[in-house]
Amino acid sequence: MSSTYGENLKLSIFGQSHGAGIGMTLDGIPAGLGVDLEALQAFLDRRAPGQGDWSTPRKEADKPEFLAGIVNGFTCGAPIAAVIRNTNTRSGDYENLKDCPRPGHADFTAQIKYGGFQDAAGGGHFSGRLTAPLCIAGGLCKQWLEEAGIRIGAHIIQIGEQTASRFDPLQPQLDQVGNFFPTLDADSADRFQAAIAAARTQGDSIGGMIQCAITGVPAGLGEPMFGGVESRIAQIVYGIPAAKSVSFGIGEETATLMGSDCNDAFAVADGKIVTATNRCGGILGGITTGMPVLFTVAVKPTPSIAKPQTSVSLSQMAQTQLQVKGRHDPCIVPRAVPVVEAAAAIAVMDMLLGNTQTTRRK
Amino acid sequence: MSSTYGENLKLSIFGQSHGAGIGMTLDGIPAGLGVDLEALQAFLDRRAPGQGDWSTPRKEADKPEFLAGIVNGFTCGAPIAAVIRNTNTRSGDYENLKDCPRPGHADFTAQIKYGGFQDAAGGGHFSGRLTAPLCIAGGLCKQWLEEAGIRIGAHIIQIGEQTASRFDPLQPQLDQVGNFFPTLDADSADRFQAAIAAARTQGDSIGGMIQCAITGVPAGLGEPMFGGVESRIAQIVYGIPAAKSVSFGIGEETATLMGSDCNDAFAVADGKIVTATNRCGGILGGITTGMPVLFTVAVKPTPSIAKPQTSVSLSQMAQTQLQVKGRHDPCIVPRAVPVVEAAAAIAVMDMLLGNTQTTRRK
Amino acid sequence: MSSTYGENLKLSIFGQSHGAGIGMTLDGIPAGLGVDLEALQAFLDRRAPGQGDWSTPRKEADKPEFLAGIVNGFTCGAPIAAVIRNTNTRSGDYENLKDCPRPGHADFTAQIKYGGFQDAAGGGHFSGRLTAPLCIAGGLCKQWLEEAGIRIGAHIIQIGEQTASRFDPLQPQLDQVGNFFPTLDADSADRFQAAIAAARTQGDSIGGMIQCAITGVPAGLGEPMFGGVESRIAQIVYGIPAAKSVSFGIGEETATLMGSDCNDAFAVADGKIVTATNRCGGILGGITTGMPVLFTVAVKPTPSIAKPQTSVSLSQMAQTQLQVKGRHDPCIVPRAVPVVEAAAAIAVMDMLLGNTQTTRRK
Amino acid sequence: MSSTYGENLKLSIFGQSHGAGIGMTLDGIPAGLGVDLEALQAFLDRRAPGQGDWSTPRKEADKPEFLAGIVNGFTCGAPIAAVIRNTNTRSGDYENLKDCPRPGHADFTAQIKYGGFQDAAGGGHFSGRLTAPLCIAGGLCKQWLEEAGIRIGAHIIQIGEQTASRFDPLQPQLDQVGNFFPTLDADSADRFQAAIAAARTQGDSIGGMIQCAITGVPAGLGEPMFGGVESRIAQIVYGIPAAKSVSFGIGEETATLMGSDCNDAFAVADGKIVTATNRCGGILGGITTGMPVLFTVAVKPTPSIAKPQTSVSLSQMAQTQLQVKGRHDPCIVPRAVPVVEAAAAIAVMDMLLGNTQTTRRK
Repeated sequence: MSSTYGENLKLSIFGQSHGAGIGMTLDGIPAGLGVDLEALQAFLDRRAPGQGDWSTPRKEADKPEFLAGIVNGFTCGAPIAAVIRNTNTRSGDYENLKDCPRPGHADFTAQIKYGGFQDAAGGGHFSGRLTAPLCIAGGLCKQWLEEAGIRIGAHIIQIGEQTASRFDPLQPQLDQVGNFFPTLDADSADRFQAAIAAARTQGDSIGGMIQCAITGVPAGLGEPMFGGVESRIAQIVYGIPAAKSVSFGIGEETATLMGSDCNDAFAVADGKIVTATNRCGGILGGITTGMPVLFTVAVKPTPSIAKPQTSVSLSQMAQTQLQVKGRHDPCIVPRAVPVVEAAAAIAVMDMLLGNTQTTRRK
Repeated sequence: MSSTYGENLKLSIFGQSHGAGIGMTLDGIPAGLGVDLEALQAFLDRRAPGQGDWSTPRKEADKPEFLAGIVNGFTCGAPIAAVIRNTNTRSGDYENLKDCPRPGHADFTAQIKYGGFQDAAGGGHFSGRLTAPLCIAGGLCKQWLEEAGIRIGAHIIQIGEQTASRFDPLQPQLDQVGNFFPTLDADSADRFQAAIAAARTQGDSIGGMIQCAITGVPAGLGEPMFGGVESRIAQIVYGIPAAKSVSFGIGEETATLMGSDCNDAFAVADGKIVTATNRCGGILGGITTGMPVLFTVAVKPTPSIAKPQTSVSLSQMAQTQLQVKGRHDPCIVPRAVPVVEAAAAIAVMDMLLGNTQTTRRK
Repeated sequence: MSSTYGENLKLSIFGQSHGAGIGMTLDGIPAGLGVDLEALQAFLDRRAPGQGDWSTPRKEADKPEFLAGIVNGFTCGAPIAAVIRNTNTRSGDYENLKDCPRPGHADFTAQIKYGGFQDAAGGGHFSGRLTAPLCIAGGLCKQWLEEAGIRIGAHIIQIGEQTASRFDPLQPQLDQVGNFFPTLDADSADRFQAAIAAARTQGDSIGGMIQCAITGVPAGLGEPMFGGVESRIAQIVYGIPAAKSVSFGIGEETATLMGSDCNDAFAVADGKIVTATNRCGGILGGITTGMPVLFTVAVKPTPSIAKPQTSVSLSQMAQTQLQVKGRHDPCIVPRAVPVVEAAAAIAVMDMLLGNTQTTRRK
Repeated sequence: MSSTYGENLKLSIFGQSHGAGIGMTLDGIPAGLGVDLEALQAFLDRRAPGQGDWSTPRKEADKPEFLAGIVNGFTCGAPIAAVIRNTNTRSGDYENLKDCPRPGHADFTAQIKYGGFQDAAGGGHFSGRLTAPLCIAGGLCKQWLEEAGIRIGAHIIQIGEQTASRFDPLQPQLDQVGNFFPTLDADSADRFQAAIAAARTQGDSIGGMIQCAITGVPAGLGEPMFGGVESRIAQIVYGIPAAKSVSFGIGEETATLMGSDCNDAFAVADGKIVTATNRCGGILGGITTGMPVLFTVAVKPTPSIAKPQTSVSLSQMAQTQLQVKGRHDPCIVPRAVPVVEAAAAIAVMDMLLGNTQTTRRK
């Protein structure tokens, strides 16, 4: 389908960047789960713009109003629905984007698909703004997973040519990730911010890579074949605009190794079965091993840049130069970090709800 | 769910490695599509073992019997069902794998998930053998897509440390891929086969990377967010055992670039809109641009190796040494090439069937 | 799942009777379909209360606000989202319904299912009020179907012991149905209203039966087995609270007949194939014949009645008497008529969107 | 979709009446459930033809071969797949049915939908023979439900104008149903068989009605709106060819009643909450009350009759007379009884698997 996800829960996301509002419906959640709206807002604020030099100074409140599904701080079993009003609607003139599509954006493909009926303003339904309702759903799932001992955290491991340490695959240091700028150490944060600042100064943008870890996940989660953890997580993570690569464990490095270097030996520790290494990212045969689940996401540079670019006029079928107006993030990677966490949380919650046979590792 | 895939078509795969048979049901295919069973067999033979030094000398016929859905060489609108009989059933003693799981395999996770009731013989439902019915479905879809001018081809771009040329992203050279060993040039084929031979000699295995191209795909295919082309392809490709990374276009390289180097400029060529480069892999906003769709898959080394490995005895909760018996592929990558094509074909067919608004590029 | 419907479109309904708002998301609708909001409101008004003696004098505006999916009067391809604010929230004291469930209502089953976390106010998510968002989605689908020459109309054929004429199964008289009270003739309307008035006077309620016709539907719509027209329509119609029977064509009468009296002979009329009679309700093998589709729905009497009833106190596990307070419809059947039309419209739209092979009858 | 069913389990049915084989795949069933193949065969035999005067003397073995999913008498967690070989293939000449469709059959609608590519032999995929794989899946589910204390039984309550007693809605007498001919008492069985014999003698067929009861079902099963028990059961039951009405509890009688006569009062019995009557058929708000679930199905007379009938020649677009050859059941109702049970079992199993919050009534 399109803007829906889930086998056991059903997430439906709606909205256009400059429409009246954006929001989500999350169906299939059991009754009686507590909801901490304050913690949810803190999570949403991590995605909101205007927090640092790396993001657009645009101000968007991103305060969801819950219309249904929560009563007195607990889920009531009915679908959960939330809306964020758009305050910044129809302001700009986006009609020209229908004629002159921005390189790297969905302007052109939306025009082809919807024949001019699409809402072009601000990217419409393809806007990164739609990750806000994704974060509402994911932020809620994250809370419920934490209640069950499952934690999810992501950080930046690359911006342009600059790289940073990855998580310890056996014991991901979730608590060590920076609050202001999400890396494992201050030095990387400085180098990453400097690279972003350089891009901004040049009227350009820059890409990066995010790593996400899920700890406390029980062994035995996931289903065979197309219901495997990799399939379920990749499907939702690729719903995040700008994601161009999703890898598990050591990912592409796996292609370079011999089996004897890639296989994770089994061992016994504290009376339970573990793997001595965790190159597989906590997943074998699509099913969790009980070790941390680890994956990485490559995020392309924001396509909206101040520099002039070559595009075409669709009406005249002729090449033209385009200069994208407005204030855009020189690097979307920091704001994408909580979005990746949200996506992972939704995928794990979905699998847990459908899991009839898995027992938590003791 | 588990071993089912598809929004518009419904693929259901069944079977265990050493059970009575493996097979698939493919529902939702329109009536009147021609089926060339000889061409399908040739496609299946590309996946079958015993074709070169790089694969197990085991002989499996892999001749599907069609039970339903095809009449006089055409689909009849009813679900298509096919079965491959397993000739090699229950021969080995796999009970010990339930106690001593093979590193890198699903033995352990299946044991946890199914509590000892799983079919452990030959990996059961987690066996790579289950890619044979995937190839039946995908081989059929490939034929139908070719009728519609859509071609799909994959090749090997990496084995261990050795690499080969990638497709020209604007005009993938599908016809240049080797028949015997699927690379773009003979030199790479030689180096890759040598690397595989070296691994085999050491009683080890080796990983690699596959690139797949889809040409002739109309612009406008795919749906927003979780229904995007990346999401749909990644979900099914991650259903292939051993896949650990799925990337689109330039994939992880996207993380290293500035926006001005990553965006693909639009241009006019022969009266239609194209992109001057194709770093996005033919997909913007999850929707096809009309340029070739390109993606890469990292395949881990075959976990079954002759070298002794460290595992555990689940009954004794103690570390032990394991030596995997039997004849195993030192490198699964060559046989995975048609499987990746099959997966891509199923995903594209599924999207085409649900596509109400896309017109083929003229 | 739960409050979601559709194979090709995806309808998701949310809200509780006394929550902040109720609404729906309708995903998968093509771009470029015109939306007449005035006509939609007129359709919604048919369901709204306060129109006659037979319905509660409660005033609910039922004015939907569209948050997404419609731009300048046309669908834009993005999910359509609409909300109706509840003005009448949290007013009553419904906590006692958790302890003393109303007979015939979902109070008890919701209590068992959600363990006390359900929103009990006004029936919560089980309220008939949730048919308002169903009518938003269905009212839109009805408009789009009419553009395609498909018309849907329902009328009342029974209230208590009183009955009225059914549609001519070959040429349903959609235009003859009364606007104020939906029957085929004025005499039935009078008798039905008198029966309802009598029930109201007694502090009681009364049930009835609705017949719905769909004309102009192309032959060949529907899928085999569980995707048949009967399956698809019955699933959504049974989502309407109070529906206890769904039958197609002559329905239960079919049990009394011989094959020679039940089969509809084929004939040629105006150069196309028709059936001389239409006992099958326009459906053979789950697939439309091109004749009008006809079905009936039995609607139980409103369970909320003024008369004292026997219930139990769940906390004391003892029998008790219950007198339901508030103003309730003595007969829900008239207001259910547009809801049945809405459900039918959604089901037909869903099937049309997934229909790859059917051509309209010429 | 089409020949697939289920939210939590995934049933996929394939086959044509005269193809190589018919069968099913049942995915999503937990590992470790026992399978009694002998009991399953006894269940399938109840559906098989040739057991009495009322069914065709055709002999079909209907012995399923299990290809996957069951190991040593227990489910192994992998999809369960079974095939029944067709011994009676391609014998007749069915090509003329493509030109001259049988009244009451899917011949015409299949021709329109599949444009002549359909498998017309014996009704193809629309044949009642496809209820055999439905009974394989349903027979298995029935066993597993019985393990959980849930029993399902159906019986005939009407053949033509003759009627029989219904189940006691509070304590359905499942054990009292006749083995040879499924009614509650011998007198009804005699009258029903006489009515069927009369139809056969006239070269005609006759319809009837089946009632099904599900006992031991926990309170709280089912989901709101479109996921309600009525919706889920009706969808699958309408997948049975010839079903034209599906009603719950007292069904259409509900339309004739006042609320005070229709509502089921709550009471306390043996320390648990019950309803004093059970007119609602054990379902309120789509959720089970814990009382027996009851529903009725009207089954139309077999459309294939020996009497000459009026049809058309599609090639000549002219009316013609048709005499259906072959041996057909004069009444399909007795053989449909286990099929209705199978459908109910699959629906209940599906709901149980997705049920995260329901506890069994104590």
